[in-house]
Amino acid sequence: MLPEHLASGSTALYGVIGWPLAQSLSPLLHNTAFRAMRINALYQRWEVPPEHLAAFVEAVRVLHIQGCSVTIPHKKAVLPLLDGVSPMAQRVGAVNTLFWQGDTLCGGNTDVAGFMGPLAQEALAGADVLLLGAGGAARAVAAGLTSLPRDRRPAGIAICTPSDTRHLPLAEEFGLRPIPWAQRHATPARLVVNATPLGMKGKAETETPYHFQTAPPVAQGLAYDLVYNPLRTRFLLEAHAAGRRCISGLDMFLRQGREQLRIWTGRTAGESALRSALQAALAS
Amino acid sequence: MLPEHLASGSTALYGVIGWPLAQSLSPLLHNTAFRAMRINALYQRWEVPPEHLAAFVEAVRVLHIQGCSVTIPHKKAVLPLLDGVSPMAQRVGAVNTLFWQGDTLCGGNTDVAGFMGPLAQEALAGADVLLLGAGGAARAVAAGLTSLPRDRRPAGIAICTPSDTRHLPLAEEFGLRPIPWAQRHATPARLVVNATPLGMKGKAETETPYHFQTAPPVAQGLAYDLVYNPLRTRFLLEAHAAGRRCISGLDMFLRQGREQLRIWTGRTAGESALRSALQAALAS
Repeated sequence: MLPEHLASGSTALYGVIGWPLAQSLSPLLHNTAFRAMRINALYQRWEVPPEHLAAFVEAVRVLHIQGCSVTIPHKKAVLPLLDGVSPMAQRVGAVNTLFWQGDTLCGGNTDVAGFMGPLAQEALAGADVLLLGAGGAARAVAAGLTSLPRDRRPAGIAICTPSDTRHLPLAEEFGLRPIPWAQRHATPARLVVNATPLGMKGKAETETPYHFQTAPPVAQGLAYDLVYNPLRTRFLLEAHAAGRRCISGLDMFLRQGREQLRIWTGRTAGESALRSALQAALAS
Repeated sequence: MLPEHLASGSTALYGVIGWPLAQSLSPLLHNTAFRAMRINALYQRWEVPPEHLAAFVEAVRVLHIQGCSVTIPHKKAVLPLLDGVSPMAQRVGAVNTLFWQGDTLCGGNTDVAGFMGPLAQEALAGADVLLLGAGGAARAVAAGLTSLPRDRRPAGIAICTPSDTRHLPLAEEFGLRPIPWAQRHATPARLVVNATPLGMKGKAETETPYHFQTAPPVAQGLAYDLVYNPLRTRFLLEAHAAGRRCISGLDMFLRQGREQLRIWTGRTAGESALRSALQAALAS
């Protein structure tokens, strides 16, 4: 006997759109969650080039796709194609989640909640932060850290990029302190965040944007890599060797994904099964 | 452990497009077949109004939907939106199946094979046929019967519609004999085919386009209803009472669906499991 959603052809469809997408763990995360939560839904991987983004958003409407994760290079470009954008996505200037409110196709951003989640227990008040990178992920970091209540906010956030120019608009917009790339190791920072793609599998896996051994030692130092594949990046391995506590991109990835599930289903997905599934996939 | 197609988000997507679609048994048929054939695929139901048909075909391309059943009111309108159309679909002037040949999105028509399949063992040579209706289904009937080799072809095919005008172009195109609707019972016919929607669930379930009891008796008479929901239409019940052998729309529906599966997967789906599933659904 076929389950009702298959007999009627009404399985809820979700997916991730990006270009390219070969390495995405989002299908594993969401399909594992749907199974664990006993939700009759399917999460697909849709590689869509920039010139077809508008047609894709039309497809979401025509096929009644229930929700979508949005990743590089579509996070900014998708904004004008939607009916509404959440205040946080407006602030970040990027959308990583499509969802419906009634007949309104909305854009949200769970990257901020994803980034801030693993820092919830950290005392960042008065700390110096160094943000490496100025792309969509860096915007979420800047929006998250500058949204903290005054008594939990870092003392200052320095930002730099290898280009020495790309970070200037972001610094201006969020009130960050731009520094030259060459000065990054001379800038004291209790929290160093890698929001560049350096260290990412396939792209620049052996590289790192920061050399913890050449930076001055800091008490209670933290290193946070937004890259999650591989699980142990050169950035985190060197941070660990230099005595820093490490937060992996997997923590942020898990948190942003669970936040998407909450938006889409109204329910909270358990974390441990998802973490195990992702760790197993990344270890293989 | 999640199956690979779920972990990678690469389940093959199929579906049916029509407007409305509430009664469609295509998802039941195809999802039952995929399960029986152990194919990692999902068949969805997509209600798409005519003004969104072009956007839907774009969605098929952008989301790499592997195949699609096309039903009323899109069977003709979809033709100019495709890269190629099979000779049979050209002849019928209607597409009921979208499929890919490499990067080429093609339209085919399995309604003809679906209609002719159950007639394969019937000796129609020299017989008179009466075709009721002139819509897309009637076009498939006309294309099928007039495509038979000369030694198996009926003597003549009469056609009529309640409007007394809608059937004239079809008669002209396929060389059928147009007759007035009022004359249909006076026209001898060994095979009477209902290609009108009369008798269909929800629409005109208690109606029939033909009254077998008022028609002259015919030796070896056949009645073929293209309506499959309900399974026993008034048309077929009255034909049976008048001593005719009956062919149900379910036979045609099953055959056209199995032909679609063959085009999409290159494999032949067993019939009995599909028939049981459909009969159970129609009986409930």
